[in-house]
Amino acid sequence: MIVVIKPNSNEEDIQRLIKMIETQGLNIHYSKGVDHTILGIVGDTTLADVAKIRSNRIVENVLRVQEPYKKANRLFHPDDTVIDIAGRKVGEGTITVIAGPCSVESEDQVVSIAKSIKESGGTFLRGGAFKPRSSPYAFQGLGYEGLDLLRIARKETGLPIVSELMSLEQLDAFEDVDIIQVGARNMQNFNLLKELGKIDKPILLKRGMSSTMQEFLMSAEYIMKEGNDKVILCERGIRTFETATRNTLDISCVPVLKQKSHLPIIIDPSHATGLSWTVEALTKAAIAAGADGVMIEVHNNPEEALCDGEQSITPEQFHKIMITVKKYAEFENKVM
Amino acid sequence: MIVVIKPNSNEEDIQRLIKMIETQGLNIHYSKGVDHTILGIVGDTTLADVAKIRSNRIVENVLRVQEPYKKANRLFHPDDTVIDIAGRKVGEGTITVIAGPCSVESEDQVVSIAKSIKESGGTFLRGGAFKPRSSPYAFQGLGYEGLDLLRIARKETGLPIVSELMSLEQLDAFEDVDIIQVGARNMQNFNLLKELGKIDKPILLKRGMSSTMQEFLMSAEYIMKEGNDKVILCERGIRTFETATRNTLDISCVPVLKQKSHLPIIIDPSHATGLSWTVEALTKAAIAAGADGVMIEVHNNPEEALCDGEQSITPEQFHKIMITVKKYAEFENKVM
Amino acid sequence: MIVVIKPNSNEEDIQRLIKMIETQGLNIHYSKGVDHTILGIVGDTTLADVAKIRSNRIVENVLRVQEPYKKANRLFHPDDTVIDIAGRKVGEGTITVIAGPCSVESEDQVVSIAKSIKESGGTFLRGGAFKPRSSPYAFQGLGYEGLDLLRIARKETGLPIVSELMSLEQLDAFEDVDIIQVGARNMQNFNLLKELGKIDKPILLKRGMSSTMQEFLMSAEYIMKEGNDKVILCERGIRTFETATRNTLDISCVPVLKQKSHLPIIIDPSHATGLSWTVEALTKAAIAAGADGVMIEVHNNPEEALCDGEQSITPEQFHKIMITVKKYAEFENKVM
Amino acid sequence: MIVVIKPNSNEEDIQRLIKMIETQGLNIHYSKGVDHTILGIVGDTTLADVAKIRSNRIVENVLRVQEPYKKANRLFHPDDTVIDIAGRKVGEGTITVIAGPCSVESEDQVVSIAKSIKESGGTFLRGGAFKPRSSPYAFQGLGYEGLDLLRIARKETGLPIVSELMSLEQLDAFEDVDIIQVGARNMQNFNLLKELGKIDKPILLKRGMSSTMQEFLMSAEYIMKEGNDKVILCERGIRTFETATRNTLDISCVPVLKQKSHLPIIIDPSHATGLSWTVEALTKAAIAAGADGVMIEVHNNPEEALCDGEQSITPEQFHKIMITVKKYAEFENKVM
Ligand SMILES: [Mn+2]
Ligand SMILES: [Mn+2]
Ligand SMILES: [Mn+2]
Ligand SMILES: [Mn+2]
Repeated sequence: MIVVIKPNSNEEDIQRLIKMIETQGLNIHYSKGVDHTILGIVGDTTLADVAKIRSNRIVENVLRVQEPYKKANRLFHPDDTVIDIAGRKVGEGTITVIAGPCSVESEDQVVSIAKSIKESGGTFLRGGAFKPRSSPYAFQGLGYEGLDLLRIARKETGLPIVSELMSLEQLDAFEDVDIIQVGARNMQNFNLLKELGKIDKPILLKRGMSSTMQEFLMSAEYIMKEGNDKVILCERGIRTFETATRNTLDISCVPVLKQKSHLPIIIDPSHATGLSWTVEALTKAAIAAGADGVMIEVHNNPEEALCDGEQSITPEQFHKIMITVKKYAEFENKVM
Repeated sequence: MIVVIKPNSNEEDIQRLIKMIETQGLNIHYSKGVDHTILGIVGDTTLADVAKIRSNRIVENVLRVQEPYKKANRLFHPDDTVIDIAGRKVGEGTITVIAGPCSVESEDQVVSIAKSIKESGGTFLRGGAFKPRSSPYAFQGLGYEGLDLLRIARKETGLPIVSELMSLEQLDAFEDVDIIQVGARNMQNFNLLKELGKIDKPILLKRGMSSTMQEFLMSAEYIMKEGNDKVILCERGIRTFETATRNTLDISCVPVLKQKSHLPIIIDPSHATGLSWTVEALTKAAIAAGADGVMIEVHNNPEEALCDGEQSITPEQFHKIMITVKKYAEFENKVM
Repeated sequence: MIVVIKPNSNEEDIQRLIKMIETQGLNIHYSKGVDHTILGIVGDTTLADVAKIRSNRIVENVLRVQEPYKKANRLFHPDDTVIDIAGRKVGEGTITVIAGPCSVESEDQVVSIAKSIKESGGTFLRGGAFKPRSSPYAFQGLGYEGLDLLRIARKETGLPIVSELMSLEQLDAFEDVDIIQVGARNMQNFNLLKELGKIDKPILLKRGMSSTMQEFLMSAEYIMKEGNDKVILCERGIRTFETATRNTLDISCVPVLKQKSHLPIIIDPSHATGLSWTVEALTKAAIAAGADGVMIEVHNNPEEALCDGEQSITPEQFHKIMITVKKYAEFENKVM
Repeated sequence: MIVVIKPNSNEEDIQRLIKMIETQGLNIHYSKGVDHTILGIVGDTTLADVAKIRSNRIVENVLRVQEPYKKANRLFHPDDTVIDIAGRKVGEGTITVIAGPCSVESEDQVVSIAKSIKESGGTFLRGGAFKPRSSPYAFQGLGYEGLDLLRIARKETGLPIVSELMSLEQLDAFEDVDIIQVGARNMQNFNLLKELGKIDKPILLKRGMSSTMQEFLMSAEYIMKEGNDKVILCERGIRTFETATRNTLDISCVPVLKQKSHLPIIIDPSHATGLSWTVEALTKAAIAAGADGVMIEVHNNPEEALCDGEQSITPEQFHKIMITVKKYAEFENKVM
């Protein structure tokens, strides 16, 4: 980390600042130039309180040379993280396809969708039991019963299950859920992240709608710092001025997050655009860009879906997409 | 609500759609034009499942005529909501000034700041006990001890206190906190909102960094639907491409939210820009625009602040701002 | 177009509004409901003055059913536009690769890069002669001399050339340029667009950094309305809050623009992220998503580039990318 | 400017980089630390080619200490710029009110509006003759005739006139226009800016919808570099995800631009929100924040306006706003 001191600062103030930084457990390399005095900070600067240094009256600017996350940082973990979940691998070298309805609605619905997904070659079943809806008057999910129906579908098909946990008091009920999803609106629910860091369970962390990639990785770091390093990143569209799509899929985050981190990255094209007829094109783009998989909303009857029907594809459309996904996977030398 | 049917849709499909909408408890006014068939939906459309209607194959578009919120809607509550908190009024006709440190650091710190605020004419004391920080390595607040120190400061000065609750398990400890703050990152933590709707305590709801005004009011609606109508809205900057300021203060939300809702609206200039030297100008702008008050970060020694020092003003600067605020309040015929 | 009238509007005002709309050459289908009165507007609503209708005191809302562009609209031109340029086709069924330096710097530079591009299978040579730079102190391009150097490179390699026109007085000098580029900052320079609509020359229209897809197509419409229908759309990244990349590549615009319009769409990954090491992944994503081609910045010595060196790839990297592009093209049943 | 060298870079490469920077006319202060080698660049770094330095393989990061603009920079021109236009002052100490219709429609219209503005105390008359419209089918303005009508209105009222120039070939016709406006869409039309830098006429430069404050000042710098230092900055709303307002008024730019630059800054509330009923609140906010004035759209019959009727206020509403503006001006010790 580089601290640039304002011109004409007095030496006493500089020494006071140096002492303050040293009490943070860091060493200083002090360089006095003609115009600028620069402090090069040596040591583990993830722990440095940049805001405090920046608040100092004599500081012109602070430049982070190193990213503020460690456990999620590829610099310190050059090898890709590959997570083993119920016999499936998630991460570099494998294409993971998580599919299922936005929300679990009935046993018939979820079992029938699960069977189609299984037949088409999907690897995980997703389904919402607790639904974060912007309106309190909208369907809020079946709750604990929804989880039970997912378990039935898993039993029927063998597909491991993924579902979103909205609040800590639900944690016990997720004990046998294979992957716990943290939704975009909870990406910076730090209390939740800390608790999920204490369990031994893969976490699918969705990027907040207006979160930078650095904040996204810092949220992964919250989980990993507590000991759980099974974090799967999921990009699901960010918020921009564009209104033709519900959100804007930030496809660049695939190469950028792969360079900055060793964690697997999954793309959710369904929530990114909110338009079912774009899912095929974006699924292909995701895999071509190097993503480790996709998460797709599939509904047996999108028109009757209680949630996100406009972006859900049918099992038939899913089947067709899977044929292409398999070709792409082969093309990119990945297994499914 | 207006539903536009795609040209050449067949009558049977239209009738099926009408039935689906009617099962939502709504009435239909059916109008068949040369090109367009239009369904005018009559009744309480807050409860209508727009997404489901939009998913229907024969639907071209859906146009909401009425906002999706009711309890927060000025249409149904023309009079301004004024909340009485420990003898202070918050809402139309009054300028409320909430001030204090980003985080409570020590008894000396918070009591000394509280005294200055009291002397300068501030109406509430704010202070963070639980701090949502983007880095898990940053100072996370003093927690329950922080609340105790706020209580001491309240006792010393008589200023009612405002503090942020981050998670439901902290709720009991907030029983005697005068206003519970919901942070921007929790604006769509719906489980939290629902529980806060069940208590009888004023809630200061901060707008999410990338939330539209409609979503903001829907989050207020989540609280109000459960019975708690003491909601104070707080705009604290939204996320844009601009980097000269930490966020972009959306000043237009003052007249727009005042038109759409009857709830009080407070501006937080400190978090909006992250720059202490802009606080005075933006405080004046907020009051001139018609806000019911401001929330300002004040620290006795911003350089040593454990959090948000760069945006904190000193008690002396606060005192100077308060002199102007009082003049503006008088000018706008408001009391303080 | 649907016009929703405010409840309780008086009949006289409604009739006055109807007359106003009819003078715009449109017919009205008048439907009086219990709560809402609705005017269905029939006819060519691209010409309707929506803003004027919306300004009317009794109008609650206006809902466009039809897009405001005609010539760029797939609805009226179901077949894909394929443009023939110096024997190369641009559009559905073909992958076009436009490559070259950000700015033309010298004969040696541009000829050597052009030869590499030709050998690797690129189809067009790009090079900036007039450079829009945010700083007046930055290199502004070689100007007319730059165009001459591009002509030499074209002669040496046979590659047709693409270059950006910044201002109308340069138009004569572009007479034999094969494709005229309109830069992102000029996407809404309407006077320029109108003049380019009067010539018979392919126009590569770059999307403005903060333009919606609808505005993008309206700018294409400006050119097409004047008679020139050889418009190639180019997405080059939009502006968001993300700072890890220079802009955010809006990959969703490929399927969406393909659905809304019949015009070819090209992706520029270099300007989208500003990071050379992301170009390969995003090029693959673009083609997988269905784009008709890519535009890539290639420099023989990126470190010494006078412009955009950080995002330029070397001829060797380009060669490697082209091998993959060819495989993808084959995979997607497209020719190059 | 600080250049951070990547760890383990070899000395030869560093020396080569130093030479490259020195050929840009800059001096280097070389500081070799334990981990980082840092180059402090001394001299006029506005001319430094940062992108080129950043492209260098051994460069980790570049940190600008000084802003990239000089003539617009308050650092080098501590005194506020005050521009004298036809006997009116624009800049610190004065509140300027520019008002008038979005577009000039007829002699009657513009003269009658001008008279009202004059009577209410407005200082300049605005009116569009050439209109940048997103649709080629929308009214494009009266053109040269519109300028003539403005001249008539000026003669009748004595109000100096402001109008937008869209393209260089119109320049002659603007010879006696008192202030030439550069629209938001032309903020980075660099050829236009350069030519406007060569004339002796005040330029009202509108901020681009997605331009940062730094880019805004760089566009002012384009004009000033050529010799014309009569630049008035105008904020008119930036593009965000919010849809309740047409754009988001960035009120923070008032204190921030005042700190960074000595140029006058005017706020346009009408285009910022597109909603006439917000104009009063935002005008007050603008003046309270320290703006040097406002630009407001006024139309004698907003419902019949050919352009931007929804955001135009009536002369009566303008009159009422002016009463408040005068009080605020007095309150802030400014003249009108
Ligand atoms: Mn969903
Ligand atoms: Mn804070
Ligand atoms: Mn370039
Ligand atoms: Mn206008």
